[in-house]
Amino acid sequence: MTIRAVGTHAADQPLGPLQIARRVPGPHDLRIEIAFCGICHSDLHQVRSEWAGTLYPCVPGHEIVGRVTEVGAHVTAYKPGDLVGVGCIVDSCRDCPDCAAGLENYCDGMVGTYNGPTSDAPGHTLGGYSQAIVVHERYVLKITHPEDQLAAVAPLLCAGITTYSPLRHWGAGPGKKVGVVGIGGLGHMGIKLAHAMGAHVVAFTTSPEKVADAKALGADEAVVSRNAEEMAAHAQSFDLILNTVAAPHDLDAFLALLKRDGTMTLVGAPAVPHPSPNVFNLIMRRRSLAGSMIGGIPETQEMLDFCAAHGIVAEIEMIRADQIEQAYERMLKGDVKYRFVMDIATMA
Amino acid sequence: MTIRAVGTHAADQPLGPLQIARRVPGPHDLRIEIAFCGICHSDLHQVRSEWAGTLYPCVPGHEIVGRVTEVGAHVTAYKPGDLVGVGCIVDSCRDCPDCAAGLENYCDGMVGTYNGPTSDAPGHTLGGYSQAIVVHERYVLKITHPEDQLAAVAPLLCAGITTYSPLRHWGAGPGKKVGVVGIGGLGHMGIKLAHAMGAHVVAFTTSPEKVADAKALGADEAVVSRNAEEMAAHAQSFDLILNTVAAPHDLDAFLALLKRDGTMTLVGAPAVPHPSPNVFNLIMRRRSLAGSMIGGIPETQEMLDFCAAHGIVAEIEMIRADQIEQAYERMLKGDVKYRFVMDIATMA
Repeated sequence: MTIRAVGTHAADQPLGPLQIARRVPGPHDLRIEIAFCGICHSDLHQVRSEWAGTLYPCVPGHEIVGRVTEVGAHVTAYKPGDLVGVGCIVDSCRDCPDCAAGLENYCDGMVGTYNGPTSDAPGHTLGGYSQAIVVHERYVLKITHPEDQLAAVAPLLCAGITTYSPLRHWGAGPGKKVGVVGIGGLGHMGIKLAHAMGAHVVAFTTSPEKVADAKALGADEAVVSRNAEEMAAHAQSFDLILNTVAAPHDLDAFLALLKRDGTMTLVGAPAVPHPSPNVFNLIMRRRSLAGSMIGGIPETQEMLDFCAAHGIVAEIEMIRADQIEQAYERMLKGDVKYRFVMDIATMA
Repeated sequence: MTIRAVGTHAADQPLGPLQIARRVPGPHDLRIEIAFCGICHSDLHQVRSEWAGTLYPCVPGHEIVGRVTEVGAHVTAYKPGDLVGVGCIVDSCRDCPDCAAGLENYCDGMVGTYNGPTSDAPGHTLGGYSQAIVVHERYVLKITHPEDQLAAVAPLLCAGITTYSPLRHWGAGPGKKVGVVGIGGLGHMGIKLAHAMGAHVVAFTTSPEKVADAKALGADEAVVSRNAEEMAAHAQSFDLILNTVAAPHDLDAFLALLKRDGTMTLVGAPAVPHPSPNVFNLIMRRRSLAGSMIGGIPETQEMLDFCAAHGIVAEIEMIRADQIEQAYERMLKGDVKYRFVMDIATMA
């Protein structure tokens, strides 16, 4: 069965309409009619081949929400009509210690929602800029938010879990001081989530005009990171800093803000390396510089349930399918508050 | 009361005999007749002003062992004749959360055993290349090793605790695979300690001729880190890597050997930065790059007791006081197995 999608056949060609096929659902598969798909910076990196190994045709999109239309014979947890989500992962080995721990995101055999290996045509996975997707039930999430929030739930599937997982792993919560560096697609979710977890949240931005926004999102304080005096006032005071900035920047400025045994976790990876951090900043207070990638399926469900319970969704701007190239250009300029979401109905 | 010491009045002058004064012991002080002092690479950095801020005259030495000769009126835990040690710390604020936690090593007011601020003449602390030292009882360690091992206990006060503390902090023990990078003064202690803690220990060296030595020290395996094939065989397998190498080197080669949630801890700081580590190596397996500095006083006592119980001492080569410059030159070439110790009696 062919469906409509948005993608491209080459790195130097704009995205446009494509026809793609989805497999017939197997016994453990769900077929999902996609309602909305969030636009992640990774989509742009992949489709423009800024990361190695992009396979074409490329259909990006891994912030998928929609409705179940068909379930395989062995599926018991879902039925047609259910609201569901699919994030960055559509398969994994299901057999390693990481999979056993529900950390499919760290499985060597993790299959990304796009550009991952599959026996389905055309031999690599095609993502959520499309009318439907067929996914094994293990990698599908239940959505319990009110249906009228569905579009704003989409970004939780990547931006939400990518920030939720490290915040949980490094213990963000009451009595903890948590920094969030960068107020974009990921950062704005980090602020909302850390605030809902009960931490004292300090947002860091290079843009003075984002200070008020950061507070509106839930930050207790907002610091302009180019202001040395403001930065110095927070020296040695953070338990955790969640750094969402993918552009190369001075990590030492933030490492120096960690208290003893504090951790700064990077969730963005720059194309060009950051300047090398000063080892003394790690040694002198037993600090850690860490990284974190997305989150596992059980924790993604936990995050969605947490967000539903706390009324958390992303701040979004809706686009039509034919506006994807303009959306990419604006995303590159940071001109979005804070996540674009594609209305898949506009493909019809 | 003046005593003999070894030090220098300027960065560009060789070390030689000096006369220095020690304060009259206060109510909580011990006066210690120094028997042996280990030679740490930090001594050389400090005395040659390779680190900023060296104050002259400079008398290095912070791996001090000896015998109590006098105790202040309020001292009850020590008596003349006791075998004791003094490490890198002779004072701290005693009032901050770090001091309260017994982590004086991370106190902002930590006073180093040499080059630290003090009201004693000449206004900065003078270290263990000297016949005696006067230290507040809080910063003195009890030694329970047999007396004939005293010289080989000296390096435990810096090299021992600097490796013991991170091994304990990051959970080296049975069922854990621990790497030790560099087989020098610190690394050889790291191997012995991690082995005694029950970990599976893999030593990393650039020198094939050190492989047999590493195994003799207690390593279960030894890997020549320049051999890509040997390195690849250990990919994603370590819980903890203790990196003792202060020279700039490729951290990614070792980060890639950590399993999910593994940590590489740096205990050496290069004068020139390491090449910037690849952020993907942190993100892809939620790895951490951390640092650790010495250890607190209670943990230093714990380490000494642990070493006494397990029969652990450093591998040393004894020198006379007048051989210090030759010892520094050999240390710079890595020509020592594995720590020089100065026999302070040779100052007489």
